[in-house]
Amino acid sequence: MTTRLDPDALLLVLGPRPDRDVGRWLQDGLRGAVVDGRLEAGTVLPSGRDAAAALGVSRGTVTTAVDVLVGEGLLVSRLRSGVAVAALPAASAAPSAAPRPASAPRPVSVGTPDPALFPRTAWARAVRDGVRGLADADLGYPDPQGLPVLREALAVHLRRARGAHVTADDVVVVSGVAQALSLLARLLVAGRVGGPAPADGVAVAVEDPSSRGALELLHDAGLRTVGVPVDDAGLRTDLLPDDARAVLVTPAHQFPLGVVLGPTRRRSLLTWAAAGDRLVLEDDYDAELRYDRQPVASVQALDPGRVVLLGSVSKLLSPALRLGWVVAPPRVVGPLVDAKRHTDLGTSVPEQAALAELLASGAYQRHLRRARLVYQRRRRVLLDALGRAVPGLEVGGVAAGLHLVVRLPGEAAERAAVDGLLAAGVPVEPLSGTGVGRREPGVVVGTARVREVDVPRVVDVLRGAAATTGSV
Amino acid sequence: MTTRLDPDALLLVLGPRPDRDVGRWLQDGLRGAVVDGRLEAGTVLPSGRDAAAALGVSRGTVTTAVDVLVGEGLLVSRLRSGVAVAALPAASAAPSAAPRPASAPRPVSVGTPDPALFPRTAWARAVRDGVRGLADADLGYPDPQGLPVLREALAVHLRRARGAHVTADDVVVVSGVAQALSLLARLLVAGRVGGPAPADGVAVAVEDPSSRGALELLHDAGLRTVGVPVDDAGLRTDLLPDDARAVLVTPAHQFPLGVVLGPTRRRSLLTWAAAGDRLVLEDDYDAELRYDRQPVASVQALDPGRVVLLGSVSKLLSPALRLGWVVAPPRVVGPLVDAKRHTDLGTSVPEQAALAELLASGAYQRHLRRARLVYQRRRRVLLDALGRAVPGLEVGGVAAGLHLVVRLPGEAAERAAVDGLLAAGVPVEPLSGTGVGRREPGVVVGTARVREVDVPRVVDVLRGAAATTGSV
Repeated sequence: MTTRLDPDALLLVLGPRPDRDVGRWLQDGLRGAVVDGRLEAGTVLPSGRDAAAALGVSRGTVTTAVDVLVGEGLLVSRLRSGVAVAALPAASAAPSAAPRPASAPRPVSVGTPDPALFPRTAWARAVRDGVRGLADADLGYPDPQGLPVLREALAVHLRRARGAHVTADDVVVVSGVAQALSLLARLLVAGRVGGPAPADGVAVAVEDPSSRGALELLHDAGLRTVGVPVDDAGLRTDLLPDDARAVLVTPAHQFPLGVVLGPTRRRSLLTWAAAGDRLVLEDDYDAELRYDRQPVASVQALDPGRVVLLGSVSKLLSPALRLGWVVAPPRVVGPLVDAKRHTDLGTSVPEQAALAELLASGAYQRHLRRARLVYQRRRRVLLDALGRAVPGLEVGGVAAGLHLVVRLPGEAAERAAVDGLLAAGVPVEPLSGTGVGRREPGVVVGTARVREVDVPRVVDVLRGAAATTGSV
Repeated sequence: MTTRLDPDALLLVLGPRPDRDVGRWLQDGLRGAVVDGRLEAGTVLPSGRDAAAALGVSRGTVTTAVDVLVGEGLLVSRLRSGVAVAALPAASAAPSAAPRPASAPRPVSVGTPDPALFPRTAWARAVRDGVRGLADADLGYPDPQGLPVLREALAVHLRRARGAHVTADDVVVVSGVAQALSLLARLLVAGRVGGPAPADGVAVAVEDPSSRGALELLHDAGLRTVGVPVDDAGLRTDLLPDDARAVLVTPAHQFPLGVVLGPTRRRSLLTWAAAGDRLVLEDDYDAELRYDRQPVASVQALDPGRVVLLGSVSKLLSPALRLGWVVAPPRVVGPLVDAKRHTDLGTSVPEQAALAELLASGAYQRHLRRARLVYQRRRRVLLDALGRAVPGLEVGGVAAGLHLVVRLPGEAAERAAVDGLLAAGVPVEPLSGTGVGRREPGVVVGTARVREVDVPRVVDVLRGAAATTGSV
């Protein structure tokens, strides 16, 4: 049985007729009514002439709209009975039927630079000049290894700033260190780098404590991680496990403890790697932000055939940019570029051109000098105030980076400090949460956006927390 | 046994002393010589005083350089015998020792827009204005689902331009359709979308012929693909296999054949999906570039709970941008956002802000109108010339997109056409290479950059190829 729709009922379905774009109004209105079920399957539309008269549009407008919707499968044209609403398969619950709760504001990571320092104008100018300088050929699908002019600029920069042993051929541009870790982890799991994968899975050594985000990426890719303790000279390389195919390490500024991997440890790290033909993944995340001296050079230069150097603009410019690099030996570069291609075909060329421009023009280095001064001062002011107010407080790490670690007497103190700092808008995470095996109480505090006016509140929170069990 | 280096030999190792930055010269020179083995392990350096005198620098400069290199593990300071070169583990072959061959110019994909049309100035302006409009909070780690202002702008755009049933909550911003396919494929393999994964692997139906690049991504993620033939009304939905958990389909403009999925087929596609609670992956890659009429609306609106709509700026702006979107039901959005976070944490915020700006300012739509006119004309001129010169030539597909398909009488003709067009600088791929099961001879020709002056050469090549076996 079929119903024929009254011409005037069409107006009820469609709502008021606009002054212009009536064709679009008719099409969109009909489509919406068919899709959401207001016009039931089998309903026959009025004739073109009747509909046009009722709606106050031309017959051509009606015909076009009907043709469009027939083409989309929403209406069917029947030889004898006219145009009817098609029988659609029972639609599943529409997305809007089950709205997700509004997302809570995401907590700010402790390693985030102060967004107020992001050089918006310089970045926009670098995009403009970078895009202007691109050849037409650069505007097709990207080279999955990275734009040659950026790889060249990064090689120059990393040789100078990080003592790396690198040419443009050794560089792979990635969308941040997170992507690099995710890709390398998958390659390790598949046995495509770091040697054949054992039947019981691939293990990677990690620092204990470590970045939780990095561990999550490795686990998500299917790697097993083995925590190796960190002391005042960095990773305890004497405890590196035999069965790991690689190690993820932060030699220039350990995350979160802030120590530097000592000279002897560097050598024994490489001896361990050489003995098992293992890979060293050197996460150089904030190495350029050293305040008291020139940063310690990367481990990569000591054995470019086994060390993979990872870096990004996240700590210096902004993690919103998703731009990073990998320096690796050819046996890693090949599979890594394949994996990058299979993941997203490559990183945005205009952004790569902009970073190349920033490096070549010296704007990157100027921003580095400026940011270093600001962050150094903020860190100093906070540390001085803490030292005066809470004399016994144990603050670890060298003068570097965007965070510091404060050890606290217990879990209650840790909770109090985390809650208090979050309430004060200061990026913080519990130190115990960064532990792999050991869980030490304390907080990792993001210092990048703690301005002088914020210092008293931070000091209050930490003093209160340190006194939580009555002892510091 | 140890050698003590003659002070003057240091100069030989370091090369000529520059006028400024002597500290850096000394450090970099020593580091390089230790790393590349010119200074052997155990070699003892001259005393600080002797070295300073020989090099013409201050003792402080020497001391600083030595301290830095001791910190990096390259030198060791011994109580009695002075400073010596450290014993490094045998370095593996350095990257530069095995240079890869210079990469050949990558062939241009047939679906690439004309880079000369890329609106460089408008893009740079959109980045500038977009970045200016960002809140400080947007410059931290990104929302892995995408910048809210862009998701909002895309929802408006896709409702208008593609008839999609979508709000900002249903949109996930990705780094191009390739990334979307790669992530969705992994989720299907893991059984996290599309239902539990069977023990013998997950199968996905694909169009035969199909984009080779898309198939490669699906296979790389571990999916099995089942080819389903395409005829003049698009995918033969009556042949969709029961054991597939999803289908990848190009309803608005089939790649490569250029046909449109017919109304009845649309309905039966959704019936198949509903029957097995399967997913339809609707690749809407070039749907906005329809020249003879308004583009057919997306299938997604007909069943937003089962259809996942994929699109990007690659065909309209540039594939160098790596910016795309997914419209999906909540049961897919959740796992997809998790996967995106574990892959790269999110897409570049400045680029997302720029696209939002482009959409909101109307610049996107203006560019679309302009590009559509240019591409329509180029396609028309080429088709007219071909029609006059090679009357029997079989050219398929509707007036849309950036490519056309020419069927040829055999493999020899296909090879001749591919070679001839490549030599003429025209993007081309063999039609037989896009076949999944069937392999039909012909060529897929990229028309976007074939200007009027290029037409005679293209016509010559295709006429010659069509005559290769003596028959068209």
